[in-house]
Amino acid sequence: MNVIENSPFTKKLSAFATLSEDELAVLERLHQRRRTFAAGSDLVHQGQPEQAAYILAAGWACSYKIQQEGTRQIVDFQIPGDFLGLRSVLLRTSDHSIEPIVEIEAAEVLADDLLEVFASTPRLAAAILWAASRDEAMVVEHLVGLGRRDADARMAHFLLELGARLALVGMGSKAGYTCPLTQYHLADALGLTAVHVNRVLRQLREAGLVTFRDGQVTFDNFDRLVALAEFDPGYLDQAGPILK
Amino acid sequence: MNVIENSPFTKKLSAFATLSEDELAVLERLHQRRRTFAAGSDLVHQGQPEQAAYILAAGWACSYKIQQEGTRQIVDFQIPGDFLGLRSVLLRTSDHSIEPIVEIEAAEVLADDLLEVFASTPRLAAAILWAASRDEAMVVEHLVGLGRRDADARMAHFLLELGARLALVGMGSKAGYTCPLTQYHLADALGLTAVHVNRVLRQLREAGLVTFRDGQVTFDNFDRLVALAEFDPGYLDQAGPILK
Repeated sequence: MNVIENSPFTKKLSAFATLSEDELAVLERLHQRRRTFAAGSDLVHQGQPEQAAYILAAGWACSYKIQQEGTRQIVDFQIPGDFLGLRSVLLRTSDHSIEPIVEIEAAEVLADDLLEVFASTPRLAAAILWAASRDEAMVVEHLVGLGRRDADARMAHFLLELGARLALVGMGSKAGYTCPLTQYHLADALGLTAVHVNRVLRQLREAGLVTFRDGQVTFDNFDRLVALAEFDPGYLDQAGPILK
Repeated sequence: MNVIENSPFTKKLSAFATLSEDELAVLERLHQRRRTFAAGSDLVHQGQPEQAAYILAAGWACSYKIQQEGTRQIVDFQIPGDFLGLRSVLLRTSDHSIEPIVEIEAAEVLADDLLEVFASTPRLAAAILWAASRDEAMVVEHLVGLGRRDADARMAHFLLELGARLALVGMGSKAGYTCPLTQYHLADALGLTAVHVNRVLRQLREAGLVTFRDGQVTFDNFDRLVALAEFDPGYLDQAGPILK
């Protein structure tokens, strides 16, 4: 039971519900079909029927959609403890693709596994709906970012959100975090060109707010960055368990 | 039981699961606390704690976020059969506001009601997670629209999506639908100015594709509009029940 208690997924769900021994045992079973996937090849394709969902145990991934003319919009990045493809496991076909950014380790979860969890442990079902709600709240923030934030605030908000999410699973702090994303990932997520991403990152660094260099994000002035981004982490709902 | 069988909410969930008498009875109980809300005053405020969710029985609403400098981004519109605020009922505070666009009738659903449904009818729980997944898939489409579609395609996609959603609950067809939205609603949803919305609607009308006038959307050439928008309704997952 020790392994599952320390898994990022358990750490994350524990922000919503204090989990019992029985519930941890169900989580343990959900983690049985572990698989490794190489960077760069899709786990799930847009339009794929009967796809599985995955719980990400190690590594980073991204979910994206391709338009017919070939442009890519990254919807979100997934870090350890996140579901991959939870949104579409109940839909007939996946509405998006999922690609590992580095080599990842993930446990396969089929729709039937989920229905069994729902039938046997309603508190876990609620915790999974909570995680789905939180994922959606993030997508909504990204929508607001694209619609209403300028490039500087959008980048600042993005780096702060990632930091808060990583902190929840023990992989980041107010000092910063390790980050495998390239400027192309940032461009496709933020609706910017790679050149524009470079310029924005340079401006934020020169203003003494944040440095993203050699796979490391360093918050040089956390509070001023929060002010620039108008970052309010309430939508991430990380303040401790609601269900005791 | 007759009323609940014909409710838009039941029609919508029936696209995911064929519901039993017992499950319909649980839905009936969820509809007990019916309330009426006037147009224009928020049901739920961004940042509000312990908010309820609602099932919309009649009328239209919108969910939105306000930025600190006062600009508004509409995240989505809700039509009969949709949840209002499902995303944040499990979160500590609501991450968005909800405003009725016309007078609405809605049934209040508390987090405890949801947990009870989860404990007693796992198939309904799965159906509610399906509805939440579908809502998120729509927000993702809007994100792609803002990030990667030009104004014409964005508007066309938006009008087609609304039409497909309304058709599912018996309120629209390939001919068109009744629509209470103003150009200001469209502007705040699509990240355009009201002037730009006007111009885009005129272009689509003059091209013989779609007419939006006097509260009525008329598809003048449905297939060409679909082609312009690259509209693929797969993400709406409306093709009939998965759970029999």
